This record gives sequence, structure tokens and C-alpha cells, in this order.
Amino acid sequence: MTRYSKEERRKRLGEALSENPFFTDEELSEQFKVSVSTIRLDRGELGIPELRERTRAVAQEAYSTLKALDDQELIGELLELVIGERACSRLVIDESMVLAKARVARGHYLFAQANSLAISLVDAPIALTGSVGLKFKRPVQLGEVVIAKGTVLKRKQNKYWVQISVSVGAEEVLRGDWILFAMEDVTAIREREMEE
Amino acid sequence: MTRYSKEERRKRLGEALSENPFFTDEELSEQFKVSVSTIRLDRGELGIPELRERTRAVAQEAYSTLKALDDQELIGELLELVIGERACSRLVIDESMVLAKARVARGHYLFAQANSLAISLVDAPIALTGSVGLKFKRPVQLGEVVIAKGTVLKRKQNKYWVQISVSVGAEEVLRGDWILFAMEDVTAIREREMEE
Repeated sequence: MTRYSKEERRKRLGEALSENPFFTDEELSEQFKVSVSTIRLDRGELGIPELRERTRAVAQEAYSTLKALDDQELIGELLELVIGERACSRLVIDESMVLAKARVARGHYLFAQANSLAISLVDAPIALTGSVGLKFKRPVQLGEVVIAKGTVLKRKQNKYWVQISVSVGAEEVLRGDWILFAMEDVTAIREREMEE
Repeated sequence: MTRYSKEERRKRLGEALSENPFFTDEELSEQFKVSVSTIRLDRGELGIPELRERTRAVAQEAYSTLKALDDQELIGELLELVIGERACSRLVIDESMVLAKARVARGHYLFAQANSLAISLVDAPIALTGSVGLKFKRPVQLGEVVIAKGTVLKRKQNKYWVQISVSVGAEEVLRGDWILFAMEDVTAIREREMEE
């Protein structure tokens, strides 16, 4: 990649961050082939706050969008949510989430993060999981930061097909396909059988 | 079914309970076409304690068999465990496990019960989930008693195929197929990719 002039770089930096506010200064420094302090200076000039601030702002907006879940029902920290389209959450694996012997994250924590993200994507007051196909690709260690990204692949009436990809850094650790059902009220689910 | 003489019935009752200690007196009463109090009398004569006592005795034995999990890592109450063969656990859905709006059990609690039961079936100090295919058949309500039954379908070297069927009463609410990997020690999983 060519190095840009200062003006060009700042323009592109602003564009990059408005597309993906979760780039770290380190990642941007690599991308633009300048030092981290240059990136900080650029951000200062552009009035773009540091990553933590940006995450908080985006997360507040994302949480206010939640429909089928309450705030505390989303496992992990919600980073982005466009209902019916895409969503993203973050989970840091702490001591309480690892198996005593294996010291790796228990499968159901990763499942909970992914499943609640899938539910958040459904545009209805209530969403139920119908079926799931999951593949765990590698164990997740204590302290690792797990990012789950969800995409609505297809929607037909009250049925949603959602794909969730869970990664640590650039490495995918879990991938799954969900089929979910949107429901308008509680009474509907009392007798209902979920059919694929 | 024919009604048996008292002696014959007691003999068969003893056999039925040694095969499945979780029959309730009501179920036995239906099965043997006698009243519940007759069943209680029969049990008294045979020296077979009530269901709760039987469950406790079986559970103690089951917990002492756990290998890939610590006691508190098994989600639900372990009722039976023959490592490498079959296992059974029980989970009562309480307020903390239901979705605020839908009032049904959150998917990841049922997953956690099933997944930890699948792990308990692996004959190794460490077991990891590779892939899972799940089908949620109907929502589970607050207060319902959920029984998960696991069976090892096949085993090839360190790879296990396990089927888990989760029911409320006679109704299946979740069914899933697991592929798991047995590991002898922690170092083996640090670099390892799980392959199907």
C-alpha cells in the first residue's frame, strides 16, 4: 500500500473509522504505515475519540435497539445491532467460564453468546431458537476476547436463518447456523410446536 | 396387560425398579393396574425406598463416576452415569432461567444441561465439544422438570458420537447430536484444532 499525504490519510482514516469504529490505533497504524502516535494525532485533528469511547457510544445505540431480549439477557457486550440484518458482541473469557481441568471456555458460554446474538437479530418482541448446527473449531483460553458476528441470511414470514461466526482475533473459533422463529406474543408459544 | 398375583407383581415390581429406579409410584400404579397405595405397600414389603431416596442414592454413585467434569460443572442434577455408555440428568427450570418476555427457558440453559451431560460421557480427564446439531422441539416453561438422556452411539479412538434427548414428561423438547473429543492432558489442547 502506498503512503498517503497527511490530508489524504486523514480523509481515509475518517472513512475507515466510520465504517468500522472498532479498529484499534495499532491496526490503523499498520494499515496506514505510520506510527501509532501519528494515528492518535490524526484522530485528535478529526475529533474522533479513542476506541473505548467509540465502543461505548456504539454500544449504547445498539442496546437501545434490542427488541426480543432485555439488556441483561444478551450474553457479552453488544457492539452493534441492526435488527433483521447484522449484529456483533464481545465476551471476555473469565475464570468463572473455564473448565477446571481443561482451562478452556465451557461450550455453553460460547453458545450463550452466539444464541443470544441470534435472538437479538429477530424483529419481534419474542424470538425462539428452532434448530442450530454448531462447529467448535478450537478451544478458547482464559482471558481471550471473543467477538461474535451475526448475519441474517434469509427471512421468510416469521422464520429467520442466521449465521453466527465467533472469533478470537483473526481466528474463527465457532461457527453456527441458526433457525429462529419470531413471535408477537406469549400466548402463541404456549401450545406451539416449532417446526422446521 | 394381565393383573398379576401379589407375589408375581412384587417380583416384577422389584425387577422394574432395579432396571429403572426413576419410575414414580403413579407410573408403577398404571403399569401394574393397581392403586398407588398398593404400590407403596409393595415397595415397603420389598424394602425399596421412595423415589426421592432412590434418586439420591443413584445420584451419589453417578457423581462419584464423573471424570471429565467436576461435580459443580455438570448443569442439572446427575441421575445416572455409565461413562462411555449412557447418562441422565434432571434440571428444574427456575425464574433465573427464563426469558423476561417469553417466560420460557433460555436456549442456553437447555444446551448447557445437554452439553455437560455429553461431556460427562467421555472416558478421559478432558473432553471437548467438536460439533453439535440441535433441534428445539417446543419451548420449556417455568417450573417444568427437564430430563436429559445421553447415549454414546459410537466411539472411534478419541472421538465420540453422542445423542442427547431432552424431555419434559413424555414429550421430547430438544434433541441433539454431539461429536466430542477425549484428551489426556491440557497441553494437547493448546495448539490443537478440532477436526471432524
